[in-house]
Amino acid sequence: MPREITAFSNPLVKRVRNLREKRHRREEGLFIAEGLRILAEAEEAGHLPLYIFYTAEMENHMMVRRLAYACEAAGGEAIETNVDILHKLSGKDNPQTVLGVYAEFDTRLTTIDRSASGIWMVAQSLRDPGNLGTILRTGDAVGAGGLILLDECVDPFSVEAVRASMGALFTQSIAQATWAEFVPWLRAGPGQLVALSLRTDTDYRVPTYAAPTFLLVGNEARGLPSDYEDECDLHVKLPMRGKADSLNAAIATAVMAYQVLGQRD
Amino acid sequence: MPREITAFSNPLVKRVRNLREKRHRREEGLFIAEGLRILAEAEEAGHLPLYIFYTAEMENHMMVRRLAYACEAAGGEAIETNVDILHKLSGKDNPQTVLGVYAEFDTRLTTIDRSASGIWMVAQSLRDPGNLGTILRTGDAVGAGGLILLDECVDPFSVEAVRASMGALFTQSIAQATWAEFVPWLRAGPGQLVALSLRTDTDYRVPTYAAPTFLLVGNEARGLPSDYEDECDLHVKLPMRGKADSLNAAIATAVMAYQVLGQRD
Repeated sequence: MPREITAFSNPLVKRVRNLREKRHRREEGLFIAEGLRILAEAEEAGHLPLYIFYTAEMENHMMVRRLAYACEAAGGEAIETNVDILHKLSGKDNPQTVLGVYAEFDTRLTTIDRSASGIWMVAQSLRDPGNLGTILRTGDAVGAGGLILLDECVDPFSVEAVRASMGALFTQSIAQATWAEFVPWLRAGPGQLVALSLRTDTDYRVPTYAAPTFLLVGNEARGLPSDYEDECDLHVKLPMRGKADSLNAAIATAVMAYQVLGQRD
Repeated sequence: MPREITAFSNPLVKRVRNLREKRHRREEGLFIAEGLRILAEAEEAGHLPLYIFYTAEMENHMMVRRLAYACEAAGGEAIETNVDILHKLSGKDNPQTVLGVYAEFDTRLTTIDRSASGIWMVAQSLRDPGNLGTILRTGDAVGAGGLILLDECVDPFSVEAVRASMGALFTQSIAQATWAEFVPWLRAGPGQLVALSLRTDTDYRVPTYAAPTFLLVGNEARGLPSDYEDECDLHVKLPMRGKADSLNAAIATAVMAYQVLGQRD
């Protein structure tokens, strides 16, 4: 049976609201995902929420009932609430009518099974949560295995990143590591490390990519450190015909990933 | 000589700060662009600010001096200020040290010269300013002519869209029109209208695209209305290997645009 919460002062409301801050996410090991479609995708990928919040009018929605039941059967809690509370929890003016609180995943490199896919995304010092989420979403679309975050990246469990991933956070593997941890891990098995770089003349359509291909993109403003580039097996660039001479990091990664996918077909 | 403004209560500070709201942008016919690099690109594309704000420490920067001089020579005003005022104007915690106020462009369809490029971006009911800016930026990178915004799109002169465009707002042509205005305009000249669609089996790598190619992408959540799709000359889709079965609108447009560019090379 769902618990009903309509008071802003409820301690659980306060706890969940705090999960919009990284510090609280780390302390609790929890994060927020919004929207029925995304919660359903999470379930399909084997992730059930520890708490599921929904508005009264969603109570009889078949999928909500199923999720609430599964959540409770797994020891979680279903909570009927109202739009004002959901607004408070999500920070959105028009909040989704369903919201889940999930346990953060184990993001150690050792959780990555590189044989699971021929394409992997790797991002270094990525700062924008929208870019991170979009790269995950693109990874899902091209059938990548997941995203490896190197050095000081934005938090993949931030509300903005989860939102932009449109559920791909649950379908893609995610790891976080330093460059010093990543390189020995990479070299301990098969894998071609491909740098998206401005310091090469090799057009991205020229090489034949070897699987598993690890597509490495750098920080939005600075790109990759040059010693990181030195470690890469291949350096490619996208043609630039414009005046601004730059591409969004998520865009560059996507164009590359579709090129690799095209070669594999 | 630059005017010095350090008071929050200054009427110009209030006016510029208001430009973060669409209503005020329309009333004034003005918008904000931030960052020296972007202002420099704007100048190169023939756009000078009506007001240029910069912090005292930037006063002797060669490019700032040049921009301030050019701005004043064209009847504009250079304003020396501080980081607190720039924070107030831009809404950013770490504001850029240079900010320009520009006159909005004429965005009527009649300003578009379709012979200027073989690739044009067209977006219908696009809601996210980050997507809009990113599509402009990608357009610049692939050498597109510009972006045509159909129906109720987010404002291309919003601070977020200008920011995400990374200066491409100034290098790409921009038009705003309804679908009812766009179709007769399109059919009055050469042009292949290509829909990015989920309702087709044609892989985007199969067709040969005819120049000028107009790449049409729909609303982030709903895609294109079916009667709009009916009007298109060609319908293509991107392969989807994942579970989420969707791509960000700016990503899909970029992958398409690079495909067209690749055929033209």
